Amino acid sequence: VMHYLTGVLSVPDPRQREALIQQEASMQTGGQVVLSDAEQRVDALLFNMKQREVLRADFPPAMHFFKARDLIRSSPIFSLLQKMPKGGALHVHDFSMADPLWLVKNATYRPHCYMCFTDSHSVRFIFSSQLPKPLPRCSPWNLLENLRAKTSNTTDLDDSILRNLTLFTDQDPEGVYPSQDVVWNVFEQCFYALWGLVTYAPVFRDYYYQGLTEFYLDNVMYLELRALLPQIYELDGSTHDSAWTLKTYQDVTRRFTDDHPDFYGARIIYTISRSVNVSTMTGAVETAMKLQKDFPDIMAGFDLVGREDTGRPLWFYREALSLPAERGVMLPFYFHAGETDLEGTEVDQNLLDALLFNTSRIGHGFALPRHPVAKDISRKRGVAVEVCPISNQVLMLVNDLRNHPAAALMAEGHPVVISSDDPAMFGASGLSYDFYEAFVGLGGLSSHLGSLKQLATNSIRYSSLAPNQQEKALALWQRKWDKFISETAFEARRP
Amino acid sequence: VMHYLTGVLSVPDPRQREALIQQEASMQTGGQVVLSDAEQRVDALLFNMKQREVLRADFPPAMHFFKARDLIRSSPIFSLLQKMPKGGALHVHDFSMADPLWLVKNATYRPHCYMCFTDSHSVRFIFSSQLPKPLPRCSPWNLLENLRAKTSNTTDLDDSILRNLTLFTDQDPEGVYPSQDVVWNVFEQCFYALWGLVTYAPVFRDYYYQGLTEFYLDNVMYLELRALLPQIYELDGSTHDSAWTLKTYQDVTRRFTDDHPDFYGARIIYTISRSVNVSTMTGAVETAMKLQKDFPDIMAGFDLVGREDTGRPLWFYREALSLPAERGVMLPFYFHAGETDLEGTEVDQNLLDALLFNTSRIGHGFALPRHPVAKDISRKRGVAVEVCPISNQVLMLVNDLRNHPAAALMAEGHPVVISSDDPAMFGASGLSYDFYEAFVGLGGLSSHLGSLKQLATNSIRYSSLAPNQQEKALALWQRKWDKFISETAFEARRP
Ligand SMILES: [Zn+2]
Ligand SMILES: [Zn+2]
Repeated sequence: VMHYLTGVLSVPDPRQREALIQQEASMQTGGQVVLSDAEQRVDALLFNMKQREVLRADFPPAMHFFKARDLIRSSPIFSLLQKMPKGGALHVHDFSMADPLWLVKNATYRPHCYMCFTDSHSVRFIFSSQLPKPLPRCSPWNLLENLRAKTSNTTDLDDSILRNLTLFTDQDPEGVYPSQDVVWNVFEQCFYALWGLVTYAPVFRDYYYQGLTEFYLDNVMYLELRALLPQIYELDGSTHDSAWTLKTYQDVTRRFTDDHPDFYGARIIYTISRSVNVSTMTGAVETAMKLQKDFPDIMAGFDLVGREDTGRPLWFYREALSLPAERGVMLPFYFHAGETDLEGTEVDQNLLDALLFNTSRIGHGFALPRHPVAKDISRKRGVAVEVCPISNQVLMLVNDLRNHPAAALMAEGHPVVISSDDPAMFGASGLSYDFYEAFVGLGGLSSHLGSLKQLATNSIRYSSLAPNQQEKALALWQRKWDKFISETAFEARRP
Repeated sequence: VMHYLTGVLSVPDPRQREALIQQEASMQTGGQVVLSDAEQRVDALLFNMKQREVLRADFPPAMHFFKARDLIRSSPIFSLLQKMPKGGALHVHDFSMADPLWLVKNATYRPHCYMCFTDSHSVRFIFSSQLPKPLPRCSPWNLLENLRAKTSNTTDLDDSILRNLTLFTDQDPEGVYPSQDVVWNVFEQCFYALWGLVTYAPVFRDYYYQGLTEFYLDNVMYLELRALLPQIYELDGSTHDSAWTLKTYQDVTRRFTDDHPDFYGARIIYTISRSVNVSTMTGAVETAMKLQKDFPDIMAGFDLVGREDTGRPLWFYREALSLPAERGVMLPFYFHAGETDLEGTEVDQNLLDALLFNTSRIGHGFALPRHPVAKDISRKRGVAVEVCPISNQVLMLVNDLRNHPAAALMAEGHPVVISSDDPAMFGASGLSYDFYEAFVGLGGLSSHLGSLKQLATNSIRYSSLAPNQQEKALALWQRKWDKFISETAFEARRP
């Protein structure tokens, strides 16, 4: 064994040491980005801020996000990240993109909104021109207008509605959510609760517009939305199909970009639950192929959603997922995979299978460092990992975000993008909170302005946009970036 | 960007998939070990046990060890791991190797044992033929014999002494130790508390013998002990130097191997605190070189101990640590390095610096996956990482051990050994608890009997033993292993 014999008799050469330190620094995400003078000034400012942040007794990335949120909001790094043009958000779900308070204060105040209370202390909503049929395991329907008129304290009522629409709590999160099973169960209950609100056609349009607004205000210029494309209903109970829903996304996106010409746009990744049976999955893949053909501009591809640990593995659906290739039809996949800590199980093969199905990106990829073959394929093919730190923390895969496996991926320069998954559900919004966790927590003192620049450009380079669209989006981003840098560098010069 | 263009039009080939799964499986620690028929039967037994363990609502590796310990004790996997010949324990500290209850029930019951209570609610001990001089910030000395005679309930007294000698608590560990600072502070208080007991010459010898016994009973056949070689005192207050202490380790080790011929032996890694000044470090390195020359059989090398985050980085001592090489003297290093989550700080360079000083192994290496250059050097040079899962959890680097960074190292087949660091301080003993966490937690369902076999043989291959000694130790281990396999395979056949 060589290690026994290796020369103990050499002394480290400081220049070699420095070279190795530099080599390692250059490997990380953004390690080879060359910074302008103005960028270097902003970088120095960020480094100072980070050094102070690391010294805090309550280091936010080491804490649960629900406890850390106020600290993060008061962090000067966070303020900078909010202003920073972050490029695109490539992993966000349809019904958790906008502030749940908007749903309470806007959607539930619209006429014809009924609410009922379930046996399990959740709520359900429906808009209807007449009294809706009662739901099983639910109280009779109450017209919210009447309920509010009867209630002395509408603030309390609104607060209690809000609590049903988000996982966020100001109680001790570890106490409220003692296990992954519990937090996933509440997560699903929240979705059922907001379902009747967001699938009502007028709210559906406005909710999406509101979601785009929140990302836009957070200096995100492009979105790829995982969307279930569910039946959307009208006040008279009539419903629309998935093509209508996709078309509506396209229309609202166009309206939004007309209103905000410096917003690049949005595309949709059609998703279906990973608990459906094989024939439903086959139908969904066929729908996806049709939508991809009929709406090539807005439709980006296909994905499966829901908790991996309790869902079917990708391989279970291999025949359905092979249909596009067999028919010679282009249907890009953007699979969630490796959002698990169950090493060595069937579900844990999703990472490799996603890659074998030529996935264009990997959603989460939390388990990727434990799969060296999959990791190698992902790197060599440039299949980026969509890292969602706050999601992984709230859904209890990791508590101290310095231990997030993507910290090692970033240190190695593995292709990654940062996203926020279900920001509204987690008490976050836009992308900046997740950028904060990635930059301060995963990156530690090593990551710098070059890392941030790389993460922003990655979000365009690894998007579903065609090369010419990417160039256009990058040019738009660059103008925003240059403005951000010159303004920040200017402010940094003030005493 | 290639990923946009890669062929979406291919369907996974099940044989290629199987080949990639096998390739990944073969990369992990022990992935290339070929199992005999009997070993395969034991492996199947282990796999069944593990599948049942993973289904438990309270999955022990996901819990704090203090809460998990009882569950682990009742686990059939743990029983098997206890019986399994584990080879050597290469990372264990001198004064945390034996059950603290032994100290209470044996050491403190010896005559002339005085105890005092510190202002910070800890205790101190000294053996003395006459009343010792009072300590600052401490109550007057009490002869324990008298204290026990006056006390109605000696069990309570003994329990309260015990609580001062270990971090283990049956209260909520997260409540008792809210931060790394707190747990490290109590950790150091415990060492001060037991210091006066274990540095008393008669107790020193017996404590070490007791420690060897506990490892031996846990089916560990070899030990490399990090030892401070402190002044050891006699009842009259006279003291011995480090050469005497090292010689005593040698004598007691010989006595132990005489009493237990199937125990291979022990070697000492001389350690000093990483908070001393440069001249003290220089002196320690000179002492180490002398001891290495005078006691080549027992002396294995040199290391620095204490919390890395608050101590000096290795590079601070670069001149002292260069002395052996400059003088052409062989002094192997076994540096603790990367026991930190402070990415990008000065201390975070310890991993690279340890390797530049040709360290023979890396203690902990918790931060290694975030240092791709250091990781690559470690792998290529065969510098094994001493993984101590329970230590990292109790000292709050990681809570769910499935997220321990060595899980990825094991998946890649990085050279690793499993050790227990300070088992007595953590409420553990021997090696089996850490083997359990590594096998069930870090390894998940992927690791198997081959992994265990590899970990056991690694502990000999990466030891400080010379090649011919390694062959002898391996032969001894192999006999124990064959016996373990045939007995377990035989028992497994019972209905
Ligand atoms: Zn998602
Ligand atoms: Zn140690």
